[in-house]
Amino acid sequence: MKRRTFLKTAGGVAAVASSASLATPAISQNRVEWRMVTTWPKNFPGQGTSAERLAKTIGEATDGRLTIKVYGAGELVPAFESFDAVVSGAADCMHATPYYWKNKSAALNFFSTVPYGLTTIELNSWLKFGGGQELWDRVYDQFGLKAWSAGSTGVQMGGWYNKEINSVADLQGLKMRIPGLGGEALQKLGVTTISLPVGEIFSSLQSGAIDATEWVGPFNDLAPGFYKVAKYYYWPGMHEPGTGAEFTVSKEKFAALPKDVQVIVAACAGDESERFSAEFHYRNGGALDTLVREHGVQLKRFPKDVLEAWGQASGEVIAALRESDDELTRETVESFLKARRELMAWSRIGDQAFMNARLLDYQYG
Amino acid sequence: MKRRTFLKTAGGVAAVASSASLATPAISQNRVEWRMVTTWPKNFPGQGTSAERLAKTIGEATDGRLTIKVYGAGELVPAFESFDAVVSGAADCMHATPYYWKNKSAALNFFSTVPYGLTTIELNSWLKFGGGQELWDRVYDQFGLKAWSAGSTGVQMGGWYNKEINSVADLQGLKMRIPGLGGEALQKLGVTTISLPVGEIFSSLQSGAIDATEWVGPFNDLAPGFYKVAKYYYWPGMHEPGTGAEFTVSKEKFAALPKDVQVIVAACAGDESERFSAEFHYRNGGALDTLVREHGVQLKRFPKDVLEAWGQASGEVIAALRESDDELTRETVESFLKARRELMAWSRIGDQAFMNARLLDYQYG
Repeated sequence: MKRRTFLKTAGGVAAVASSASLATPAISQNRVEWRMVTTWPKNFPGQGTSAERLAKTIGEATDGRLTIKVYGAGELVPAFESFDAVVSGAADCMHATPYYWKNKSAALNFFSTVPYGLTTIELNSWLKFGGGQELWDRVYDQFGLKAWSAGSTGVQMGGWYNKEINSVADLQGLKMRIPGLGGEALQKLGVTTISLPVGEIFSSLQSGAIDATEWVGPFNDLAPGFYKVAKYYYWPGMHEPGTGAEFTVSKEKFAALPKDVQVIVAACAGDESERFSAEFHYRNGGALDTLVREHGVQLKRFPKDVLEAWGQASGEVIAALRESDDELTRETVESFLKARRELMAWSRIGDQAFMNARLLDYQYG
Repeated sequence: MKRRTFLKTAGGVAAVASSASLATPAISQNRVEWRMVTTWPKNFPGQGTSAERLAKTIGEATDGRLTIKVYGAGELVPAFESFDAVVSGAADCMHATPYYWKNKSAALNFFSTVPYGLTTIELNSWLKFGGGQELWDRVYDQFGLKAWSAGSTGVQMGGWYNKEINSVADLQGLKMRIPGLGGEALQKLGVTTISLPVGEIFSSLQSGAIDATEWVGPFNDLAPGFYKVAKYYYWPGMHEPGTGAEFTVSKEKFAALPKDVQVIVAACAGDESERFSAEFHYRNGGALDTLVREHGVQLKRFPKDVLEAWGQASGEVIAALRESDDELTRETVESFLKARRELMAWSRIGDQAFMNARLLDYQYG
């Protein structure tokens, strides 16, 4: 809370001041340039390239009235200082994912992903029609920020393991790189979890410093070459069933834009969100094929008792957040859980039932 | 083929001429107004309201340089004349779904939906990254049109029945309102299928003229009150696993727009596509709840032998299209089937496995 108050009074005011001094003269010449910081390496395939596309589309759609220069992680500020950079005015906007800022508010987990939570289309449904965006707006309002969903990675993979997981007992004592609430749930099952930046995962697996890691899914996991140092690739990734990215701007700087440019920015964010999600889904298919056929990766399904115990532990993690000291976090959890109940009931007889029945048909295609 | 040639030589040229005469002076005043015809009743919840939102966003994003007036079905031309209206220049754009125009090209089925085909996110993936959009562009190029996906209804419901379907034998002799390739597949299982506009479905069910009908899903099916005249609501809707809408413009008129307005139109289409899909997914959840709790609707799952036989029959329908006389249709089918194989492999261990495992967890939420 202390930190949040600091940010609101110091950073928030600074953002207003810098927006007034930077944006107003720029707008009077009908040209504004924004700096976008990102939590991804420059042009990182998937997340980084989507941020670049978004910036390019906004530039073209506004005929150059708003141009956005994209900085990779570490170019302007380190990845995990992106949030503070936009709050302070050192940057104007960012491309990231909300759970990176969970220390600002635990509610932010829910706008990215929570274990056993929502799929990509379910998350979009909650955000756009179930009150999720309004809650996100209220959380970010405290920091002078405004966010749009920027797409989802889809269900992630359960991760790379060097030993087989045949029961819950096999999790005991495992050292695994896994962040977030899904990792907290695994801790309850005896896993020692640590957080590592992507650049340190390969060597840690190779040296045996960790026994397992999750990263994202086939598309993002292929390039770092984890298949060279881990034997088994487990599914499904219950800890992150569709991790949403964010395009987040300084609220004051956004408000200073002409009305039509504001509408363009929001539309371009939505347009690129769908493209981001489609790209992950498509490229995960191709990358999975490459991993299995070319690199001999062994796909393994988590056994039922692990899926059940992990779900139970995840429920306990979420239940604790229902009792949060922060009212907005409590409201967010309740809104999310209500949407989850309704959306699950529909998905069960919709997408899920369709996909299950589709597999009964072996002759087609 | 004859009809297509006619359209290309007569309608296509007419569209060019009318675009030249209408659009050029309007652009010189920096203002263009387009007429959008739709295949939905004015403001029809879901499809019609999305078309209105899209028009409004484009107007605001272009600061009024391009405004779009939306006509409900029958207001400017009848619903099923929308395609020809845009080709001839009687309208400038339309909001519809491509399989309504399957008589122009059988390839168009694949950009809407085909039985046992692709879910919403899979369809987006194929269109945006698997070559689907390029094929669609080539098909519509023949008619002087350019389309963007405008969102998906998601998996539809299997339909409203007045008798139980306990085996494939129960389908024999059934009279059902079901259009499209999914209906063609049911014909192979002994169903007599007919096509009826939505306004005639209720009375036909009530009078016993038909035994069953499909329409869309809980959200679209609630308002017409089918629950009053049919007992059972079957799932899953294998015939339409995620029916894509289209926003389609005259290619010549689009090309005449300033470059930035072109980019805005495309971005607004993508933005509204994601919103359309999210709205259906969200409102299907709530409507399903209303149907079951308030109206006592009995949900029933198709038995396994029906799902298998229907899949087999659907495979035969698709196989026949692989042998189409039309080269573009053949190319479209092959591209679609390749994407389907890869996307299914990923969905199986991604979305599908996640949703199945999520149901193991009864304690959460």
